[in-house]
Amino acid sequence: MRFTSEQRLDDGVLERAFTLGEIPGILWTPTAASAPVPLVLVGHPGGLGMMYPRLVSRARDSVAAGFAAATIELPGSGDRPRSAAAEEARADLRRAVQAGEPVGAEIVDRLVLPLVERAVPEWRAALDALLALPEIGGPVGFSGGVISIGVRLAVVEPRISAALLFAGSFVPRVIFEEARRVTIPLQVLLQWDDEGNDRQAALDLFDAFGSREKTLHANLGGHTGVPRFEGEEGTRFFARHLNDAS
Amino acid sequence: MRFTSEQRLDDGVLERAFTLGEIPGILWTPTAASAPVPLVLVGHPGGLGMMYPRLVSRARDSVAAGFAAATIELPGSGDRPRSAAAEEARADLRRAVQAGEPVGAEIVDRLVLPLVERAVPEWRAALDALLALPEIGGPVGFSGGVISIGVRLAVVEPRISAALLFAGSFVPRVIFEEARRVTIPLQVLLQWDDEGNDRQAALDLFDAFGSREKTLHANLGGHTGVPRFEGEEGTRFFARHLNDAS
Repeated sequence: MRFTSEQRLDDGVLERAFTLGEIPGILWTPTAASAPVPLVLVGHPGGLGMMYPRLVSRARDSVAAGFAAATIELPGSGDRPRSAAAEEARADLRRAVQAGEPVGAEIVDRLVLPLVERAVPEWRAALDALLALPEIGGPVGFSGGVISIGVRLAVVEPRISAALLFAGSFVPRVIFEEARRVTIPLQVLLQWDDEGNDRQAALDLFDAFGSREKTLHANLGGHTGVPRFEGEEGTRFFARHLNDAS
Repeated sequence: MRFTSEQRLDDGVLERAFTLGEIPGILWTPTAASAPVPLVLVGHPGGLGMMYPRLVSRARDSVAAGFAAATIELPGSGDRPRSAAAEEARADLRRAVQAGEPVGAEIVDRLVLPLVERAVPEWRAALDALLALPEIGGPVGFSGGVISIGVRLAVVEPRISAALLFAGSFVPRVIFEEARRVTIPLQVLLQWDDEGNDRQAALDLFDAFGSREKTLHANLGGHTGVPRFEGEEGTRFFARHLNDAS
């Protein structure tokens, strides 16, 4: 992990860009922390540049709550090399949605599974590097982004103590089955009128999670209409689980 | 409205018992308020005595947030005269549940509709009396209790600005249809594994509400297992809607 730039934001947040091998990432830490802090991994759908305004807003909330926050670029997004197979699957998905056809499981598998297979080890490597920094202590939460990545991480990565998931994208059957093995506390966001998302599938996924503590927050509105107050509620969810466990 | 007793609780809460005609009630106000405060009507399933520990806990949360809180006994509960028809409907319901049979719409109608018809005018009369007190200014929120009472109140009582509803009891068809006419902001609690409650019916009810701002909080667990943190989240819901509007 190599830091490539740093700037102090106006509200006590130190923002550092880094690379982890070829993967770009961003780390936000409280400038005033006197002891190692918990960490929130900030997920996203890919494209750090385009997502930056929303990412830094979520990161500020985390830092204000006393946590560090970090994110890395997804495979095939932003400045990272495109995958021809993923681009093709995405085009097939778009065609199906535009034609008003149901999106077949085969397209979802082709689009999501290779992304999960590549991204999850990268997030785990980022976690190795981040937890080696003296200013970061854990525990670790995972927040948002592609829900299938969050589910797989929750199953395979024991250092993640709690996850805030956004049920807003297609979930392959194999990931749905993995959800039963998730046991960490979950808060799951669902947009009730998400145009490209199957509400019943999202409710079934929430039902499938094996966690003893799981909460669904469903809000009226479309995919991008998550209410602002859910940001604060997410921070409080992590405050409950990352502070209590530290 | 006649106050029958008063005591100062230890955390800046003045608790006053009152009667409104034959109906007993309780009012909690902040001892330190210097201006009229918003009001939260604290709903419940009936039986003020038995419910008191939970009611006073919710009232303390409201007062800590700067609101007054008040409740009245339901018709046929606590020390109020029983209704033979309601007792019979309740017995029929219990028989159906214990026999593992589906609870027919006819039983639900017999049990819930007369309760709604009697209770709603009483809560509105209580609102008249409470809003006439100099220490209470509004706006008004309705919290919890029998959801059909909350739905009807939200439709007919324009002084109620926001409602926190618990989707944990049978809803007659006529109330379900009224839900479409509710337009105030809602936060709806659902216990995912509520033994005596139909999950799909609760999701359909959430879907039916006409409100542009509505949030569903579904938590793992049975009817009485609502997590403690939902109390705080309810208070913040009212803080968003009762403070902004005041």
